[in-house]
Amino acid sequence: MKKVEAIIRPEAFQDLRDRLSDEGITGMTVSEVAGCGLQKKQTGVFRGSHFEVSLQPKIKVELIFDDHLLDHVVKNIRDVCATGEIGDGKIFVYPVEDVIRIRSGEHGLTAIK
Amino acid sequence: MKKVEAIIRPEAFQDLRDRLSDEGITGMTVSEVAGCGLQKKQTGVFRGSHFEVSLQPKIKVELIFDDHLLDHVVKNIRDVCATGEIGDGKIFVYPVEDVIRIRSGEHGLTAIK
Amino acid sequence: MKKVEAIIRPEAFQDLRDRLSDEGITGMTVSEVAGCGLQKKQTGVFRGSHFEVSLQPKIKVELIFDDHLLDHVVKNIRDVCATGEIGDGKIFVYPVEDVIRIRSGEHGLTAIK
Ligand SMILES: Nc1ncnc2c1ncn2[C@@H]1O[C@H](COP(=O)(O)OP(=O)(O)OP(=O)(O)O)[C@@H](O)[C@H]1O
Ligand SMILES: Nc1ncnc2c1ncn2[C@@H]1O[C@H](COP(=O)(O)OP(=O)(O)OP(=O)(O)O)[C@@H](O)[C@H]1O
Ligand SMILES: Nc1ncnc2c1ncn2[C@@H]1O[C@H](COP(=O)(O)OP(=O)(O)OP(=O)(O)O)[C@@H](O)[C@H]1O
Ligand SMILES: [Mg+2]
Ligand SMILES: [Mg+2]
Ligand SMILES: [Mg+2]
Repeated sequence: MKKVEAIIRPEAFQDLRDRLSDEGITGMTVSEVAGCGLQKKQTGVFRGSHFEVSLQPKIKVELIFDDHLLDHVVKNIRDVCATGEIGDGKIFVYPVEDVIRIRSGEHGLTAIK
Repeated sequence: MKKVEAIIRPEAFQDLRDRLSDEGITGMTVSEVAGCGLQKKQTGVFRGSHFEVSLQPKIKVELIFDDHLLDHVVKNIRDVCATGEIGDGKIFVYPVEDVIRIRSGEHGLTAIK
Repeated sequence: MKKVEAIIRPEAFQDLRDRLSDEGITGMTVSEVAGCGLQKKQTGVFRGSHFEVSLQPKIKVELIFDDHLLDHVVKNIRDVCATGEIGDGKIFVYPVEDVIRIRSGEHGLTAIK
């Protein structure tokens, strides 16, 4: 199993949620974060200047799913969230060792189906 | 070392915290998230219908501990959080490569003991 | 690639952000969490006493970067956040399988450079 953490623009979230739902990917965990990517924001200061990394509000979407869905999930996130403008976000992929459904005790792939 | 992320009902949190404390598992990180599992909520619309995935408020509890405690931790979470009703939550298990105590620089198992 | 989750005192965050920026580590994701480490807080109760694990407000800083930067990142976090007092925080290290820049589709190390 894999975990994807997508850090996206808040305004893209509703469309992403609808898209994932259409694709049958309904399990997700969502939170509000602040982030900065590679760019720096130049701030003028009196007689000098310095760089400041500005934090932007972002939405973190966490999805855990079977390995074979990875390309499909990434494609769908990019379809919906890529505008071509700086700051579209990042997708991080992590290994997952197990999942347990608390209600039933089922684990592994059965717990996410 | 392992990391467990338990996504639970907010009303179960206090009991889980007490239970983990009784079991000597005191290190934890807690945050507010929103989530949806497998079920979809049907919403009626005029001349038709569509499915909508509704986001529910949940608590995410993160626990990092030694490998041999995994079954024990999962058992205790299920003991406290499983009501048998839909929406009891999920437990995700991840590998952890290292832990460092910032104060002392200790790392590995020493840093979580 | 590695992911570091540093759980630090809120008052250390601005200095850490400045330091990481000075070191050229500008990609980061930040969130508010509550946490407890190993210590317990004794609370007096009428004719008795019990232990209570108190949750403290903390900042979680997530950084994804190339493997060879790990020691450097840990050193910089400790330089800024270690006061020597209980509660300075923890650093957790996790494996990362891939990173995708949503805008361009670039992945792997290219996506974090
Ligand atoms: N190396 C990183 N570590 C942790 N979080 C990161 C990292 N890089 C980006 N992020 C998170 O992803 C969010 C979006 O990043 P962003 O889209 O600006 O990436 P980028 O690499 O600068 O791409 P772009 O050039 O399209 O702006 C950031 O606000 C931050 O929350
Ligand atoms: N595949 C997933 N990826 C990410 N988060 C998930 C996933 N599945 C569940 N979650 C998180 O876990 C929370 C609880 O899920 P939930 O208990 O509804 O799981 P479920 O599989 O539907 O089990 P049940 O049948 O008992 O309801 C969700 O609100 C969401 O935050
Ligand atoms: N085992 C753990 N699992 C998950 N989160 C943890 C764990 N240990 C610590 N944390 C998180 O790290 C934060 C800081 O922990 P803390 O600095 O108190 O660690 P500690 O091991 O008690 O070190 P110290 O002795 O310096 O206080 C906690 O508030 C919690 O959010
Ligand atoms: Mg950027
Ligand atoms: Mg459910
Ligand atoms: Mg402590």
